[in-house]
Amino acid sequence: MIDVNAKPALRDNVVVYFNKPAPPGPLSAETFLYATEPLAPLADREVRIEAIYFAIDAGARGMIDDQGPYVLKLQLGDRMLASSMAGRIVESLHPDWPVGVYVRAPMGARQRYVALAPDQTPRLMQIDPSIAPLTAYLGVLGVTGFTAWVGVEIIGRPRPGETVLVSAAGGAVGSAAGQIAKIGGARVVGIAGGPEKCALVKERFGFDDCVDYKAGDLPGQIARACPDGVDVYFDNVGGAVQHAAIAAMRPSGRVVICGQVAQYAGSGSEEPGPNLIVVLMKQLRIEGYLVSHHYDRFPEFAARSLEWLRAGKLHSAASVVSGMQDLHRAINSLMEGRNIGVQLHQVAPDPSQAQ
Amino acid sequence: MIDVNAKPALRDNVVVYFNKPAPPGPLSAETFLYATEPLAPLADREVRIEAIYFAIDAGARGMIDDQGPYVLKLQLGDRMLASSMAGRIVESLHPDWPVGVYVRAPMGARQRYVALAPDQTPRLMQIDPSIAPLTAYLGVLGVTGFTAWVGVEIIGRPRPGETVLVSAAGGAVGSAAGQIAKIGGARVVGIAGGPEKCALVKERFGFDDCVDYKAGDLPGQIARACPDGVDVYFDNVGGAVQHAAIAAMRPSGRVVICGQVAQYAGSGSEEPGPNLIVVLMKQLRIEGYLVSHHYDRFPEFAARSLEWLRAGKLHSAASVVSGMQDLHRAINSLMEGRNIGVQLHQVAPDPSQAQ
Repeated sequence: MIDVNAKPALRDNVVVYFNKPAPPGPLSAETFLYATEPLAPLADREVRIEAIYFAIDAGARGMIDDQGPYVLKLQLGDRMLASSMAGRIVESLHPDWPVGVYVRAPMGARQRYVALAPDQTPRLMQIDPSIAPLTAYLGVLGVTGFTAWVGVEIIGRPRPGETVLVSAAGGAVGSAAGQIAKIGGARVVGIAGGPEKCALVKERFGFDDCVDYKAGDLPGQIARACPDGVDVYFDNVGGAVQHAAIAAMRPSGRVVICGQVAQYAGSGSEEPGPNLIVVLMKQLRIEGYLVSHHYDRFPEFAARSLEWLRAGKLHSAASVVSGMQDLHRAINSLMEGRNIGVQLHQVAPDPSQAQ
Repeated sequence: MIDVNAKPALRDNVVVYFNKPAPPGPLSAETFLYATEPLAPLADREVRIEAIYFAIDAGARGMIDDQGPYVLKLQLGDRMLASSMAGRIVESLHPDWPVGVYVRAPMGARQRYVALAPDQTPRLMQIDPSIAPLTAYLGVLGVTGFTAWVGVEIIGRPRPGETVLVSAAGGAVGSAAGQIAKIGGARVVGIAGGPEKCALVKERFGFDDCVDYKAGDLPGQIARACPDGVDVYFDNVGGAVQHAAIAAMRPSGRVVICGQVAQYAGSGSEEPGPNLIVVLMKQLRIEGYLVSHHYDRFPEFAARSLEWLRAGKLHSAASVVSGMQDLHRAINSLMEGRNIGVQLHQVAPDPSQAQ
């Protein structure tokens, strides 16, 4: 009954623990403890996945930030959680999930091997590296892309010809949001840090223009890049960029609050926001959302995004920090805005890269 | 062809001009100049209305405030504008609009007699003081009530059993919004200034509870009055009340930005608003609207509001300042929050009151 192929030689498990308080600023290597632990045998209908890539989002910083607003908070000694992971089934007692299959797994533990109970396997999704790279399934084809799609298609709803302004335009969600808005016929302007990143936002992700927030006079730059004003502002950052963008909104504009990284970068402070008189005067709609409230739309997104990717309309990008014990570096890369596209933490070789 | 009854003895016209700058704070009598001017003869198909009541809203202050955010600004020497008026036709060369008919007129000049050109008469609405007092047609049955209805039914959309919090609950829009939300099955909590006004909000307008913002500890009071949090906050004021209300929002809550009187009371300053991280964390929707964008729904509102009024579910209230030359007092009454229900400026006797 047990396939002998389902039992390759597995190494010990490595489990990541929250080890040391994380004050504002970059994380140190000691923030996490990587404990080697023996693997427990699988029970009937369980599967074991070897993690290859973990996605890193702002929640990875927020959950260990003792002052920020993130709801999900870890205590010292807790196992670190991951928002999503791509890997390969290396052991299986489940007839529907054979060894060798590549899968994307939703939120769970951050460790080398993840064993899924039978009631969790419905949350697995088989992915195919011959169609798109594994990294894309955690990026524009995954929760990241879906987050962008929900924000654009369900919340912001730009009409063809409208101007969409996207902050953190080189980031995972921002780059996807801009591309999706562009596919829908909007004029898309990004906000990113530094001339290189701005050039990349335009050349690689096809934005019509990009504003460099590090170059000063953000209001003036936005006014020049969006001469008719902003119809939809897709906000990934909050803070001063948000103030400048909201001031540039056109009447009946929509502000999609997708991320507020300026507020949970371990800064520990909550700055004042814009006076909401502007919401009245310009009849704005400012709306936040949880992507988990929209999962019924995921199949529609999955089909469309794959079609766009194959048609060359949607470009995947990932920044990878490799090394099981380098989680702090992967998180720092994201928080310091060094990533282009989705930030990943690679913990095992990606066999699909060799092809 | 001209009905002799259409030519009663009319007095001279009185036209209100913006006469003196209006610094922050209460207006003085000299703010306005009341000029006596002869009446021009009517042209074919014109009608002349004698004004009885003018509605006073925050725009009356905003349009003469040199620093506030109101879009429509008057210059010294301009004629003062009114948002809506109830009066009676006293002269007519239009076959469809005979003398003696009571009408509600939309935005126009603020003067004793208003002459309407033929292309403006479609904006007139005949009203019937035998069905409801003239004051109600400028209050819960008029633009005021419609503003509340749009905010509740189209923007906030409370579901039965949800908690709706309304600021300026004793005011024209607030008292109507609370009653309309209550009719829809919500639990309705008001915010008003002083124990007397709070008692009135509960007893006269049927709110389930009312918080006195002058009594201090607004967050604590809101928490006690809304133990499950706030699903819809109907914001008429902005400022500190808004901060406290938004902090009490439940996930997926909606903030209806209807008025921001704290911001255009001639204060001349724009205080910071709430940090919008709360919009992300609680998936809030904050939305402003212009009632003029929804006029296609007015007939539906007019039918429903009249039905509710006649069924005793919707109560009309008006605070009246009488005297043609007392416009400043009427505006001050509103800006100082002394009104219960809609604030009116009466400039001629109300014959329907004698009945």
